Amino acid sequence: MIVGGGFGGLEAAKRLASAPVQVTLIDRRNHHLFQPLLYQVATAGLNPADIAYPIRAILRSQRNVEVLLGEVVDVDVSTGEVLLSDGARVGFDHLVLAAGARHAYFGNDDWEQHAPGLKTVEDALEIRRRVLSAFEVAERSHDPDERRAALTFVVVGGGPTGVELAGAIAEIATHTLARDFRRIDPTTAEVVLVEGVDRVLQAFHPELSERAQQQLADLGVEVRTDTTVIGVDAAGVDLDAGTRIEARTVLWAAGVAASPLARSISDDLDDAGRVPVDASLAALGHDNVFVIGDMAAATSNGDDVPGVAPAAVQGGRHVAEAIRADLDGRPRPTFRYRDKGSLATIGRAAAVAQFGRLRFAGFLAWVLWWAIHIALLIGFRSRAMVLFGWGWSWLTFKRGARLITSRWSPETG
Amino acid sequence: MIVGGGFGGLEAAKRLASAPVQVTLIDRRNHHLFQPLLYQVATAGLNPADIAYPIRAILRSQRNVEVLLGEVVDVDVSTGEVLLSDGARVGFDHLVLAAGARHAYFGNDDWEQHAPGLKTVEDALEIRRRVLSAFEVAERSHDPDERRAALTFVVVGGGPTGVELAGAIAEIATHTLARDFRRIDPTTAEVVLVEGVDRVLQAFHPELSERAQQQLADLGVEVRTDTTVIGVDAAGVDLDAGTRIEARTVLWAAGVAASPLARSISDDLDDAGRVPVDASLAALGHDNVFVIGDMAAATSNGDDVPGVAPAAVQGGRHVAEAIRADLDGRPRPTFRYRDKGSLATIGRAAAVAQFGRLRFAGFLAWVLWWAIHIALLIGFRSRAMVLFGWGWSWLTFKRGARLITSRWSPETG
Repeated sequence: MIVGGGFGGLEAAKRLASAPVQVTLIDRRNHHLFQPLLYQVATAGLNPADIAYPIRAILRSQRNVEVLLGEVVDVDVSTGEVLLSDGARVGFDHLVLAAGARHAYFGNDDWEQHAPGLKTVEDALEIRRRVLSAFEVAERSHDPDERRAALTFVVVGGGPTGVELAGAIAEIATHTLARDFRRIDPTTAEVVLVEGVDRVLQAFHPELSERAQQQLADLGVEVRTDTTVIGVDAAGVDLDAGTRIEARTVLWAAGVAASPLARSISDDLDDAGRVPVDASLAALGHDNVFVIGDMAAATSNGDDVPGVAPAAVQGGRHVAEAIRADLDGRPRPTFRYRDKGSLATIGRAAAVAQFGRLRFAGFLAWVLWWAIHIALLIGFRSRAMVLFGWGWSWLTFKRGARLITSRWSPETG
Repeated sequence: MIVGGGFGGLEAAKRLASAPVQVTLIDRRNHHLFQPLLYQVATAGLNPADIAYPIRAILRSQRNVEVLLGEVVDVDVSTGEVLLSDGARVGFDHLVLAAGARHAYFGNDDWEQHAPGLKTVEDALEIRRRVLSAFEVAERSHDPDERRAALTFVVVGGGPTGVELAGAIAEIATHTLARDFRRIDPTTAEVVLVEGVDRVLQAFHPELSERAQQQLADLGVEVRTDTTVIGVDAAGVDLDAGTRIEARTVLWAAGVAASPLARSISDDLDDAGRVPVDASLAALGHDNVFVIGDMAAATSNGDDVPGVAPAAVQGGRHVAEAIRADLDGRPRPTFRYRDKGSLATIGRAAAVAQFGRLRFAGFLAWVLWWAIHIALLIGFRSRAMVLFGWGWSWLTFKRGARLITSRWSPETG
């Protein structure tokens, strides 16, 4: 049984294709989401269906997999069952927990209503609605202060998502909407990126952080490093320096916490709510429960494994091998994370790339970023619509937009 | 002032481009919707952004037009003002009412929750959610009756929308989803089309109605003519013959009523809530208020003008001419509706077409249907995304998905 149809869960299911096992994959959504491009949906560059694909369709031809739409609310390790939100229980021999993470507000959950984060299609559509609506509010407003607040956008968190969101909003204002309004000039919009430490893109080399900050500045984004947000309300944010930014739109990209399902497996979670795992990615104390991706506090060669998509994919591949080893009576292999390099995009023709000691920024990094992401998307079969247009869709009977985007439960249908 | 950015309102705004007037176009949505293809969104064939485009962007280069996002709740003809939902008042010299129609339930408004209609992007997404979820419910169900009800789809109303929806759902079941499930066979789904009179597509020649019914039958749709729905609840529909169909999914395509704004202009509305207008399309008794499209009870050469998109476009063109005539001190021209022919599609390679005495059905009609609709869409500049892929979108800075799909108000932002 696999819980979660993200990068890790899907990879585990695929890698078990030829194994003599029955796989049940449970997800509360009907679609796999290509999260690295989610910020494009949030900023109106892509449709949800461009980056999401029905899990059922991805695993259609793999006969030993059954896909269930349902929300797992608890795991009973003693009986080997998961409990669904509708009360159903489903038993398992091996369990792979790959339910990912949600954004976290460091104990200030009331900030969420004012500063949505970006993890799901609904999140992305909500952010898109807020960003586009802000310009409409500014156009209709007669009060200069209200207008200024409507045209101010604060992004909290300078990781890849925060940098991408800030860059994309600046582009919307300066290019996409530039000539669409009569009373306001969208190019006067202010985009502020707030980061708690001394540089953005901390996971990258300091040299690249500097390049990224320069590229953001070129796009018109004001970057405030060494700045912590101490309050968020409907009208703006309070910063630790005692300053306040009046802003109608505040977006949250400052932290994530593992799925609360982690608690049903371990009492000893780390700060990000992740489950400690052994060298084979099994939860400590539960040999038949593997935890991968953003839910796992894993190490590889003594280093922490980062919460990125490639680590989830590698984790999925590894647990499939570990399960095969169990079936064959062989010892489980040890998980080794291979860092294949990192990329982050900032805007048009602006990105940074780091592959071991090789580091570069600018147009080349940006082209590489797109090439890799389009190639990966094609791997998930969802890119055909965008690349070849709907003719292809008709010829093959595929439908690109098969998403159920409202929260789904068997009761509400 | 123009209220409504549909086919009629948009055409009126465009035709006033070179006139010495200031045009304000108010719509409660930020996008124009190409309604003839909305059933494709409801049946997961297209993304919302494929058939919707920001009104602001369409009218970007027309300097005498201002676009306002707002909901008009009342018209005060005596003072020449419209009242918005946020309490604002906006004055006008000439008013063009083009706010369209919603689906109507003949006094049974409680049916709406069980049988959604199809007029907006939200409607389409709700129908898509219900149709796709029904198959998921069937897959999870262990009760044969519940499973059968989940796989039964009832479409009420045999006009073009009803025929299109029924045909598309049948195709989803028999082709798109055919191999995606493990416990159910989607091809066993039943699609029932219920029509009150003796044939579907009443606006067409009886010969074409017969062809359409044959094409529907070929797709596996059961057509029940001369059948009236007397009750709709969460579990199915009751028919006048005393029979009942247990169906989890019921869709409504059986009737429309004009926007309630009609009431603020006239006390003498027709059965469909439409405003009686004179030969120049001015509301009776209000020379400076024009009513066009689905809101108007208009006649041309003694015949009723049908509630179709071409009639709305022609109405928009006409009122622009009438306003120019007023400005020049000339008498207003008389509105003449020109029927350019009718097309309805049923499914893959299945459609009917009628141009005067020329009537045909099948593949040729279907090709023509698509060619015309794609050509019209390109006219509204929204098809580029689908036709040329996102490369185009990047090169031109256009963003295909600029929609605010939740109900918008200045308060909620």
